Amino acid sequence: MDPGWSSYPEQPPRLQYDPCFQANATTIQLTSICFIQRTIMTNKKTYKPCDLVIYGALGDLSTRKLMISLYRLENAGLIESASRIIGVDRFDKSKDEFIAIARESLEMFLKDDIDPEVWDRFSGRLSYLAIDLTQPDQYQRLHAVLDTAERVTINYFAIPPFLFQGTCQGLAASGVLTKESRLVMEKPIGHDLQSSKQINDAVAAVFSEEQVFRIDHYLGKETVLNLLALRFANSIFTTNWDHNTIDHIQITVAEEVGIEGRWDYFDKTGQLRDMLQNHLLQILTFVAMEPPVNIKAQSIRNEKIKVLEALRPITSSNVEEKTVRGQYTKGFCKAKEVPGYLEEEGANTESTTETFVALRVDIDNWRWASVPFYLRTGKRMNYKRTEIVVYFKQLPHNIFKDSYRELPPNKLIIHLQPNEGVEIEILNKIPGIDGGIRLQKTKLDLSYSEAFKKTRMFGGYEKMILEALRGNPTLFLSREEIEQAWTWIDSIQDAWSHISDPPHPYPAGTWGPIASDSLLARDGRAWEA
Amino acid sequence: MDPGWSSYPEQPPRLQYDPCFQANATTIQLTSICFIQRTIMTNKKTYKPCDLVIYGALGDLSTRKLMISLYRLENAGLIESASRIIGVDRFDKSKDEFIAIARESLEMFLKDDIDPEVWDRFSGRLSYLAIDLTQPDQYQRLHAVLDTAERVTINYFAIPPFLFQGTCQGLAASGVLTKESRLVMEKPIGHDLQSSKQINDAVAAVFSEEQVFRIDHYLGKETVLNLLALRFANSIFTTNWDHNTIDHIQITVAEEVGIEGRWDYFDKTGQLRDMLQNHLLQILTFVAMEPPVNIKAQSIRNEKIKVLEALRPITSSNVEEKTVRGQYTKGFCKAKEVPGYLEEEGANTESTTETFVALRVDIDNWRWASVPFYLRTGKRMNYKRTEIVVYFKQLPHNIFKDSYRELPPNKLIIHLQPNEGVEIEILNKIPGIDGGIRLQKTKLDLSYSEAFKKTRMFGGYEKMILEALRGNPTLFLSREEIEQAWTWIDSIQDAWSHISDPPHPYPAGTWGPIASDSLLARDGRAWEA
Repeated sequence: MDPGWSSYPEQPPRLQYDPCFQANATTIQLTSICFIQRTIMTNKKTYKPCDLVIYGALGDLSTRKLMISLYRLENAGLIESASRIIGVDRFDKSKDEFIAIARESLEMFLKDDIDPEVWDRFSGRLSYLAIDLTQPDQYQRLHAVLDTAERVTINYFAIPPFLFQGTCQGLAASGVLTKESRLVMEKPIGHDLQSSKQINDAVAAVFSEEQVFRIDHYLGKETVLNLLALRFANSIFTTNWDHNTIDHIQITVAEEVGIEGRWDYFDKTGQLRDMLQNHLLQILTFVAMEPPVNIKAQSIRNEKIKVLEALRPITSSNVEEKTVRGQYTKGFCKAKEVPGYLEEEGANTESTTETFVALRVDIDNWRWASVPFYLRTGKRMNYKRTEIVVYFKQLPHNIFKDSYRELPPNKLIIHLQPNEGVEIEILNKIPGIDGGIRLQKTKLDLSYSEAFKKTRMFGGYEKMILEALRGNPTLFLSREEIEQAWTWIDSIQDAWSHISDPPHPYPAGTWGPIASDSLLARDGRAWEA
Repeated sequence: MDPGWSSYPEQPPRLQYDPCFQANATTIQLTSICFIQRTIMTNKKTYKPCDLVIYGALGDLSTRKLMISLYRLENAGLIESASRIIGVDRFDKSKDEFIAIARESLEMFLKDDIDPEVWDRFSGRLSYLAIDLTQPDQYQRLHAVLDTAERVTINYFAIPPFLFQGTCQGLAASGVLTKESRLVMEKPIGHDLQSSKQINDAVAAVFSEEQVFRIDHYLGKETVLNLLALRFANSIFTTNWDHNTIDHIQITVAEEVGIEGRWDYFDKTGQLRDMLQNHLLQILTFVAMEPPVNIKAQSIRNEKIKVLEALRPITSSNVEEKTVRGQYTKGFCKAKEVPGYLEEEGANTESTTETFVALRVDIDNWRWASVPFYLRTGKRMNYKRTEIVVYFKQLPHNIFKDSYRELPPNKLIIHLQPNEGVEIEILNKIPGIDGGIRLQKTKLDLSYSEAFKKTRMFGGYEKMILEALRGNPTLFLSREEIEQAWTWIDSIQDAWSHISDPPHPYPAGTWGPIASDSLLARDGRAWEA
């Protein structure tokens, strides 16, 4: 969920430890100095030194996520030794005050101990510059700290979208930008096609498309990246990845959290735009795309866009059979009673904003003809869980009907959260010498933390920041992708706006409304339990 | 390896504990009484009470294997409560003496403790009858003990093949046989097509084909039976099981033991006839057969025979490119020096009998066109190991060539010995945030003893004996299969007889002669390490 900026705060926010807030990189293993050194040696730092300028350095995104991720990259020896990190915000702070805030962030959100040596190196990169981004003349201050000759300036927008345009113009007018400069930005990139275009236009007026790095941190997750390896390096999957062999595919992104005190922001957005437009559609494109010619950014982007273009539109004519909206009511999360969406602090009790959405998505191309993709995402679900489940087709003939009247299909399950791993569910004979062949579902599994015990695991955020530092665009979103996704999403949102029924209620701590089960049941299928 | 009967012993053999001898059912788990009770309840005893008559009850096969297997079945509550076990041998023994011999067998070869309660039940079934099988008039003694009205007589031939004919005739003449009677026999069923036909003819003069149960205990192994489940209950394999997706298949049956003091017998036989003609060809048929219409005995046998019929003949014209013979020389097994084959006790130092054989087998049918099967089996190999490895085809295009110049193929590995399990080797991305996608071979695995911890595991012998008691012919060999296999093997043996070169030497404790590696290297392949 997004921070939900609605205004430029008058006071620098105070750090508060929020037990529901989960940092992204929870899978980092404990490291030893010896391992760090190995990492340093084996990870080539091929990128140029950077000046990483974080706009909104005192805000939530920066203090909760960026500082931790940057420290972790530092800890792994992955930040170019000459690179610097410059915090920019409107409030007057000294460098030491900013360093103290960074330290406080780490103490609050980093799950490991802070290594004094790493901290020394890390804090040595930090500096601070006070700029009110709404005041064009103040951008000149950047000249005093940036070194555009020896370093690449990476402008990281950790600021509310309404500031994007002004900041881009301020940067351009100040003359600190070069062709090498980069811009890193995150969702929300608009709340519909039109607002997204406005942002992208404002950015495009100053930065070329090649300079813009749009982050979806789901694309930094190991198991999402591993989809490329699984699909295109393994013949047993390559030959089993189309309508001939796959029955349907499910993608679930279940959040345990509710709206986390940001009712106002969320209510204007809803789960479809907050989660599905970006994360689920991105996962979908990785699962569904044609084999790219190579793994260069442009090849992969082209294939992803082709998937988005092939999504069958959902409009008023089919919205009721293809979509389910839900809204959580009070219930229990981990045995603790939690309020319903309309009872949250600041709630408008008339709201019809969805906190859950389930869709049947059809992809109109040769590969996926007649293979539905079922997507669901919701807040206040039973537990946090992100997964992709590929259901293979049932066998045309069953020679084991004495023991299994219907053979359950093989499944490939890709776990993204909370633990990353890959499983294949197959049928095996149950060992035993009683008559006949009795079958049992068994999992061939690969747990990342088990299989790669000695490998340091990184979260999606670190991966994306590092790729931005390196200037590798492969995993970032192109303007075209985002606009294509919004076009498709807007049609659903528009169709919903003509429905008078409110979203289906579901108790907090469940897997969504019954209507979500019916969506699949109508097709003779069921959600992965 | 077979006992190698060459004569009818004058003295009853004495049990000797031989540390190299491995009982077949080494995977049996420790059981608790509660589990036994569950087994009793869930395993329906649907078969009629039996009189199991073991001919050669004092011999090696009986005392080393049958008694243990029968006790284990007893322990699992799988023997019909009214069934009896009658030992027949030429030596005068009382019932109590026979029971004492059975007890001694268990104490020597059973790896678990003997449960007093189970032993009471088991020993209560035992009785003994002295018959010199070469004396037709003595068969009348069977009348005194058999109950052909209430029980099915199961005649288990644990005797040397040269006694088969006389014993069949004696049984027939005595009048104890009914249409329900069964005959259980084991390899060697002849040493070539002609001798096999003689045995089968002698048997067929007395028993109809439906009454004959020919054992290959490899077919009782869980992972062999699981081949049916893997292949025909899982779409991801069904769609990946032919020349379109499979590059080649390897079958290895490596023995650690040498010829175990039975030089004379083995030297007349050789590894091709001792192991490949039966075990490896049987495994091959399970891997290669077309989907049977159902899992009835006749359907499966028909498909197995079709595979044997499609084996491309190996004759003098191609024997040198398709086969490798080896003979072990002295070397080290488990750090202990062991003699070469020609230095074993009783050896004829001129022998050219093979103790190792590797073959390239082609199956001339639609499914397997251009997919070679490589078979190898040998004595005094590095360690005991039986496995099937299915190598899938390489991908036609490699988008990861920066990190892997050639993508290694996916493999399905089926372990039969020493531990049973299934593994799929796939390529995964190595977790990590350095640039590019680095791949690593990773195994999705299913260890039987891990996955089925709570399930009692049985050895192939128990399985086969139980199926014989039940009268289920599915896993037994038909006459046609055996004769088809001999026809194919005889052609190789004949071709070898025209080669003047001796077998390739290989040191004990290795994986065979270098020529075996060359056999695959010529095709650009290598044995699974």
